[in-house]
Amino acid sequence: MRATDIIRIKRDGGSLTREQIEFFVRGVTDQTLPDYQASALLMAVVLRGMTAEETAWLTDAMVRSGIRVDLSGLPGSKVDKHSTGGVGDKTSLVLAPLAAACGVLVPMMSGRGLGHTGGTLDKLEAIPGFRVGLSLEELRAALEATGCAMLGQTSRIAPADKKLYALRDVTATVESVPLITASIMSKKIAEGIDGLVLDVKTGRGAFMKTLDDSRRLARSLVDTGRRAGVRTEALITSMDAPLGRAVGNALEVVECLETLKGRGPDELTDLSLRLAARMVRLGGAAASEDEAERMVRRALDSGAALEKWRQIVAHQGGDPRTVDDYQRLPSAPGRHLVRATRSGYVALLDAERIGRASVALGAGRNRVEDAVDPGVGIVVQATVGDPVREGEPVLEIHYREGAALEAALERLEGAIEIEDGLPERLPLVIEEIA
Amino acid sequence: MRATDIIRIKRDGGSLTREQIEFFVRGVTDQTLPDYQASALLMAVVLRGMTAEETAWLTDAMVRSGIRVDLSGLPGSKVDKHSTGGVGDKTSLVLAPLAAACGVLVPMMSGRGLGHTGGTLDKLEAIPGFRVGLSLEELRAALEATGCAMLGQTSRIAPADKKLYALRDVTATVESVPLITASIMSKKIAEGIDGLVLDVKTGRGAFMKTLDDSRRLARSLVDTGRRAGVRTEALITSMDAPLGRAVGNALEVVECLETLKGRGPDELTDLSLRLAARMVRLGGAAASEDEAERMVRRALDSGAALEKWRQIVAHQGGDPRTVDDYQRLPSAPGRHLVRATRSGYVALLDAERIGRASVALGAGRNRVEDAVDPGVGIVVQATVGDPVREGEPVLEIHYREGAALEAALERLEGAIEIEDGLPERLPLVIEEIA
Repeated sequence: MRATDIIRIKRDGGSLTREQIEFFVRGVTDQTLPDYQASALLMAVVLRGMTAEETAWLTDAMVRSGIRVDLSGLPGSKVDKHSTGGVGDKTSLVLAPLAAACGVLVPMMSGRGLGHTGGTLDKLEAIPGFRVGLSLEELRAALEATGCAMLGQTSRIAPADKKLYALRDVTATVESVPLITASIMSKKIAEGIDGLVLDVKTGRGAFMKTLDDSRRLARSLVDTGRRAGVRTEALITSMDAPLGRAVGNALEVVECLETLKGRGPDELTDLSLRLAARMVRLGGAAASEDEAERMVRRALDSGAALEKWRQIVAHQGGDPRTVDDYQRLPSAPGRHLVRATRSGYVALLDAERIGRASVALGAGRNRVEDAVDPGVGIVVQATVGDPVREGEPVLEIHYREGAALEAALERLEGAIEIEDGLPERLPLVIEEIA
Repeated sequence: MRATDIIRIKRDGGSLTREQIEFFVRGVTDQTLPDYQASALLMAVVLRGMTAEETAWLTDAMVRSGIRVDLSGLPGSKVDKHSTGGVGDKTSLVLAPLAAACGVLVPMMSGRGLGHTGGTLDKLEAIPGFRVGLSLEELRAALEATGCAMLGQTSRIAPADKKLYALRDVTATVESVPLITASIMSKKIAEGIDGLVLDVKTGRGAFMKTLDDSRRLARSLVDTGRRAGVRTEALITSMDAPLGRAVGNALEVVECLETLKGRGPDELTDLSLRLAARMVRLGGAAASEDEAERMVRRALDSGAALEKWRQIVAHQGGDPRTVDDYQRLPSAPGRHLVRATRSGYVALLDAERIGRASVALGAGRNRVEDAVDPGVGIVVQATVGDPVREGEPVLEIHYREGAALEAALERLEGAIEIEDGLPERLPLVIEEIA
């Protein structure tokens, strides 16, 4: 098999065979395929696409570049959730205890924030002592002990993805539905899960800016999951404005705790419940969607999910006193209010700009090797649809250094729009792909 | 300027600026741009194309990656010819002395054969003693002495092309009109010529198999030459069957000598005269096409072109006695006749298969580093349109080793078709782009 022949086929719009795709992934993984051939093929895939079958083969080859975790020894269904990334998107910390409290096992491998979007691992590490670097043995032990394990990916999971992503990042070949699909799904399938709920974000703060693109990605993800034998469903949800009120790691942990106590913002509560209910039904712990929704609502209202969270935190070395005492979470000393420049209704809170401002404060990272500051962030005081008077606060910035504040304020230019009339707003859940 | 931004623009179908293209070519030349970024951009160019302006900038940047030969000290116009490559395409050895005999200076830098097509340098080197490795000083001296210099490219001419071509070859990014244009034209423009006649081959034995593709390439070449201030015209000529009767280096030299003596095959004579006439007119040595055609015809009929050839060969160290004594040229001892399997008219002589058979004999090379055997080759005994009886010879193979003959015969499978009726044939010159 010659690499140039494979590149030529894709360049000319043809379909690759399973063997050709495996040759490519193997070559990338063991570095026998030169980067310049890999990147030429990646660009051809970006511009020519891949069929659903090719995408499934690519995903499978990437799964098999590493280990596939064997959780079959644990009784019950293992279900995870994956979000394509948003600003203030913290549902994992709410839905994981909700689903676990309903009897589903949740082996949740997450990533760190990159660019303007946050990452679950950074949020968890805002909790003093919380260890996300679990071994596979510790993953099993956590699932047995609490029904949930929240951890980072090990290098043994889909190593081809890491190599491919590094190459895509420097060759402008990130934006491709089949490549994104294989990247996401290979890591999820390798977790050894039976079910997966996908939260595909769409809008200004999302990776996919248009509903059409988000729909194509959601369908590709669901299709690929099913071809791999994983029960997979997707919600397409709005990411024009930040989800909830808090952006920044410790601030988001607090908001999650408030949500688990029944006092969270409506849209965060609703979306977390909805995603958790899907996990519960996909995991077979409920016979219908209705029953699943009643179960997760009960887990929230009864305090069972909060109690589950306490167990998860304690089991992974985190300080469970943070649940009741938010002072034990990191914070930043500085406060700055961004005020309404006119009276009216908040019509726009640009999630991407707010995300970038939050990164400028230190809450996220531009490069993988950057460190994050768990205490800084932005709290939305008046969200989309809220009435405000000129001079009233819209955003509260939690910062540590003046220079970072300046940089954040610069990135917030144009992030807030206020209009006379009540703005129209898309529903949070725009579409379901089930 | 960031390489990923440039790749992204082209990936999304945009146009690059002159500065972006220069950044790319400079990075390839001095190897500061990683190959994986260069190949991703090349694939994006293959699939998204380039405007005429971008192509001209790319060509110019490639010219300026090396030296541009300064021939302005020599009085008179310098005109060259370039062919996109064919089988039995030997016109250079006929038209160069024709044009030089008419008073045009011909600084002809050529390449070697690669794949199924032959190369002028290999043909010249079949002449004992002929030196193609002229320095730039020797180039000037040859032009002054004989009006013609036939030589290989120096590494100082368009070094970016050499690096880019090596990368294109292994990343399936060769087939692209703008990339082919810049590769051809950068080397020609760097020769310091005033005029250029292009022979764009089309058909089974050509790089461009369809007339549409050949036309697009011809237009792009002509447009790019003119933008660089070089008077450029193109003929699109048929390359379904080999040009003339001989394929193989020394065999082709003999055919050229016969042509210069007025005894060559009609189509080789006609095409050489036509291309030479264009060179004479582009070089300003004739006021009209008609006058130019009369001049080159006279140079042929009077023996002036043959005499010019003798001077060129002698000046470059070749044995001028080869002009009259073909025994002084290399030859191969073995002869094998490929005979007609039925009676009828020869309807097809597949140039590509015959070219590949000739390479198998040793007349060409599959890899740049292969050596060629100047004596071997194939002589067409019955060409397209000729009547043949079953058992009569169609091809005569000149071979050195039995194994090479076997390999050549294998490649000739299906190369000859004989039909009952006289086949329709395209005219040799299909179109002119002037």
